[in-house]
Amino acid sequence: MTEPKSYKWYIEYTSPEEGHMHSIQKLHYSSQTKFQSMEIMDSGSYGRCLVLDGKIQSSQADEFIYHEALVHPAMLTHPDPKRVFIVGGGEGATLREVLRHKTVEYCMMVDIDQEVVEKSKELLPEWHEGAFDDPRTDLRFLDARKYLEETKDIYDVIIIDISEPVEEGPAYLLFTREFYEIVNERLSPGGVISLQAGTTALHQLLNFTSVNKTISAVFPVVAPYQAEIPSFGLPWGFTLASKDEDPRKFSQKRVDGMISERISGTLRYYDGITNQGMFQLPKHIRKALAEETKVIEDNAPLFTYN
Amino acid sequence: MTEPKSYKWYIEYTSPEEGHMHSIQKLHYSSQTKFQSMEIMDSGSYGRCLVLDGKIQSSQADEFIYHEALVHPAMLTHPDPKRVFIVGGGEGATLREVLRHKTVEYCMMVDIDQEVVEKSKELLPEWHEGAFDDPRTDLRFLDARKYLEETKDIYDVIIIDISEPVEEGPAYLLFTREFYEIVNERLSPGGVISLQAGTTALHQLLNFTSVNKTISAVFPVVAPYQAEIPSFGLPWGFTLASKDEDPRKFSQKRVDGMISERISGTLRYYDGITNQGMFQLPKHIRKALAEETKVIEDNAPLFTYN
Amino acid sequence: MTEPKSYKWYIEYTSPEEGHMHSIQKLHYSSQTKFQSMEIMDSGSYGRCLVLDGKIQSSQADEFIYHEALVHPAMLTHPDPKRVFIVGGGEGATLREVLRHKTVEYCMMVDIDQEVVEKSKELLPEWHEGAFDDPRTDLRFLDARKYLEETKDIYDVIIIDISEPVEEGPAYLLFTREFYEIVNERLSPGGVISLQAGTTALHQLLNFTSVNKTISAVFPVVAPYQAEIPSFGLPWGFTLASKDEDPRKFSQKRVDGMISERISGTLRYYDGITNQGMFQLPKHIRKALAEETKVIEDNAPLFTYN
Amino acid sequence: MTEPKSYKWYIEYTSPEEGHMHSIQKLHYSSQTKFQSMEIMDSGSYGRCLVLDGKIQSSQADEFIYHEALVHPAMLTHPDPKRVFIVGGGEGATLREVLRHKTVEYCMMVDIDQEVVEKSKELLPEWHEGAFDDPRTDLRFLDARKYLEETKDIYDVIIIDISEPVEEGPAYLLFTREFYEIVNERLSPGGVISLQAGTTALHQLLNFTSVNKTISAVFPVVAPYQAEIPSFGLPWGFTLASKDEDPRKFSQKRVDGMISERISGTLRYYDGITNQGMFQLPKHIRKALAEETKVIEDNAPLFTYN
Repeated sequence: MTEPKSYKWYIEYTSPEEGHMHSIQKLHYSSQTKFQSMEIMDSGSYGRCLVLDGKIQSSQADEFIYHEALVHPAMLTHPDPKRVFIVGGGEGATLREVLRHKTVEYCMMVDIDQEVVEKSKELLPEWHEGAFDDPRTDLRFLDARKYLEETKDIYDVIIIDISEPVEEGPAYLLFTREFYEIVNERLSPGGVISLQAGTTALHQLLNFTSVNKTISAVFPVVAPYQAEIPSFGLPWGFTLASKDEDPRKFSQKRVDGMISERISGTLRYYDGITNQGMFQLPKHIRKALAEETKVIEDNAPLFTYN
Repeated sequence: MTEPKSYKWYIEYTSPEEGHMHSIQKLHYSSQTKFQSMEIMDSGSYGRCLVLDGKIQSSQADEFIYHEALVHPAMLTHPDPKRVFIVGGGEGATLREVLRHKTVEYCMMVDIDQEVVEKSKELLPEWHEGAFDDPRTDLRFLDARKYLEETKDIYDVIIIDISEPVEEGPAYLLFTREFYEIVNERLSPGGVISLQAGTTALHQLLNFTSVNKTISAVFPVVAPYQAEIPSFGLPWGFTLASKDEDPRKFSQKRVDGMISERISGTLRYYDGITNQGMFQLPKHIRKALAEETKVIEDNAPLFTYN
Repeated sequence: MTEPKSYKWYIEYTSPEEGHMHSIQKLHYSSQTKFQSMEIMDSGSYGRCLVLDGKIQSSQADEFIYHEALVHPAMLTHPDPKRVFIVGGGEGATLREVLRHKTVEYCMMVDIDQEVVEKSKELLPEWHEGAFDDPRTDLRFLDARKYLEETKDIYDVIIIDISEPVEEGPAYLLFTREFYEIVNERLSPGGVISLQAGTTALHQLLNFTSVNKTISAVFPVVAPYQAEIPSFGLPWGFTLASKDEDPRKFSQKRVDGMISERISGTLRYYDGITNQGMFQLPKHIRKALAEETKVIEDNAPLFTYN
Repeated sequence: MTEPKSYKWYIEYTSPEEGHMHSIQKLHYSSQTKFQSMEIMDSGSYGRCLVLDGKIQSSQADEFIYHEALVHPAMLTHPDPKRVFIVGGGEGATLREVLRHKTVEYCMMVDIDQEVVEKSKELLPEWHEGAFDDPRTDLRFLDARKYLEETKDIYDVIIIDISEPVEEGPAYLLFTREFYEIVNERLSPGGVISLQAGTTALHQLLNFTSVNKTISAVFPVVAPYQAEIPSFGLPWGFTLASKDEDPRKFSQKRVDGMISERISGTLRYYDGITNQGMFQLPKHIRKALAEETKVIEDNAPLFTYN
């Protein structure tokens, strides 16, 4: 231990027994919004970070991994996604990745927390890259679940980009069977969804396995996968579900072909090989998924430590 | 943040800007050995841990991931590994996994630090599971590099299971081109090696990419891969190199067939699907590997922060 | 910040907003006793420490300050203390200081936690210095309050050396008016008591001021004082109460005279000048004491953060 | 441990083995000035704080203790202080306390770091309370040592309010015998100085004792004293030196009389009783002072850990 340490640290507790420390270079914004605690800071290792309820949502250094992993598998699993709906996604980077798909004609993004979106607009320009101003974007500050329940609109892809279900946080009713049924109702016939689904670390696997079990109660195709986002401190899981297509059957070549045809610009994380790797989960995770019996419901929700 | 926190914490600094905190339940052993600082403790999240020079080497909860990932791809890449050499591997779990291979007739394990091995024997029984007493085991406390330089013996597989190259630590001269050339000399014609190669986190990728570049200067087949070992706090990389076979070409079925034929007992982490996943690195890591130019040499070594 | 840091830290939280960190050199003992959590460790700055319920009780480096400050003013305030009673005092150092007084013929020490005393005997020899084996010592493992309530015995000095009143800890009923009334009953006519009374830090002064208010409801002479025990992290308060004499009136010379006459060996912290200093509290603390109205009672107890 | 903890912490290391943690509520300013690192933050326990080179200089909650302890004993030790010089004192609170003395006609304040003073003016209004705008104030941004060396002006009281002598910090040459000789030259016949002199914690006493030894080489009257400033984490020492008067001889009544006559407004910390207490150091500190032999000199400076 030979080099200087910081005087200012951000500590993210992943359990009462474990935490990750990040030096704070600068604290740009700190607030208790109507829905959650919020911070935008510069960390020593990962650059600028958005933190909600004590959890890093994304960092400048590795947000491209998170957002490409969340968006592109789902978008490519649909043959021709024109109408997309984003639940959450306050930073604007999920929107950014969606809009790179040339097929997209309309993208509604519904985030409950206006303050998060407005501060992200101001302080996280590398995230949204102007996506909020794209004419295809329809941004609203609403309760996404209530909106989806009441609307008659239909979407090809619905991307659920929300924070973890911490107690008293705004997200936990967006992880239940009832919510996924509402989502399913709003999808077109070849419809696809994807979501971040919690850590895949073996000692805290319940969130990942029960989210997958819950979605399996609603969708015929459920494809769990993982990606490494170092700033999260633990390996991370995602889930894709569809009414029809299964991205695990796509060859490397087919994925690369779709990327060059349908996506503008250059991806940094996702391509055909990455797609091959991310859906091949290790044996112990597949076993835990297979053995899971818990279905998350409105009256039996799941909470994450924070 | 609603639950009790610990009063005692172990902090592993991965850089001056980043650390991982583990609650200490019990500290079983703490020593400055002849070569490094050493601790055996019970952490709240991962159970018992071996810590060398401030770095968790393996934990009770997830050591199976590390050791299966390190040992089995290399062992199965050789068609009939009879003689195996382990560099380091003090806990005895690498030895344990090697000895599960029915083909193995002889395994020499050379660790420089007798105190680490003896305390592991006593305090980490779930790691070695008696492997040190197997009649095929030949355990010696020597400088492995010097031994390999001087011996005339030939091995089918050499597994390099050493701690990271921290300054003043015992490992840094076991990551150089000169060392890999010595290793290469001691391998039989279809010989294979594997090693842990540092984190694959994008902001600290130099160790992984330059180790691979260095090995590529010596071996015709070099197959980098990664695995998630949550107690390490960051995603982790490995490298397999061989004189002939390439495990990336093995079908899922072939891997599963070899496992059931050649390995005793049941694996928890590794199988045909896991093999498919672990070698498919994300695009940005493949790019960094391709662009790396640094070859680590005895007089241009690489050090890791601790 | 130029020097090495520790990997292992003990953190003592004095509030949800503040903590003190001590490097852990060695953890000698760690247990959940019948009454509290207990640790004996070597810290980097203060040497060996006894920790109960997450609070340093005393450290090798500065326990002499705490124990001399707690014991000698009370003992010298009584003209001829023969019979002494210690409530708590598990480390044995309060007993050690009491027994240095040549007048003492009998000292009963009652600690509820046998495990704390036995481990202190074994691992804190510099604290007790054999005091447990002094023929004048009568050590018992009982509930001190219950014992004092039931006994008919009379004491000249009663020293209350207990940990802070943390919720669910063993001490909080030993800080109430009802308890001080029991204590008062057991004192001889010139009887004196002393106790540690919590921090005198201005932002956490409630414990100190309300303990003093409570004792004032029972004793005619109440003399609050403070001492600096660096390992406690915050300035610390004590209270002396008596039926008659007031140590604040003792001249420096008188204290020095009594010390050389009545106490064996050499004191390191306490003498006539120290006595002058410790009872002269700063203006803001005297003001807070004067304004305090809270009397702690069995059914209106006070709890400290831990 | 039952209540919420913070995600953001400021850690002040007082040695490689010890630190104090303060939750960060808000970070108002963070900069590397020309001379030192600087932060203004709101801590959970002590409110707003000024931090220089990783050390809390003063906090909203207890700065009154520090500044009253530093200023008033020295000012009252001079019979009629008209001209005062402040070395450092960037927050403006030392100036504020000096200007409360009705005798003062002129006060020069020299701080090397203009950025610290300007940001204090803006963000620490409770500290300066407008003192910078007092017509008696003459504020300059210079090297105080150089200025005092070159000027011919004479002062009645010189108050040295500088940060600790950390390596590469701006203060270490203001703690040497040579500097105190320069100061002595600039004092009127009854002249008095005072300064903060480092912690009085027994395991880090060298700064306090050697500063006192050094000043004793220059001044006939040297009166070390201490005060408890909880936000400093350790007990704190000061030194007063004069050419003539000794404040330790002032009766309580005389101090109270001088305060009501010569000082505007109401003091919160300092009065006659406080004066009695603060100069009566405990025995072990007096012993260490008496035994100290080190005189700090320009070519044998002393550095504090940071």
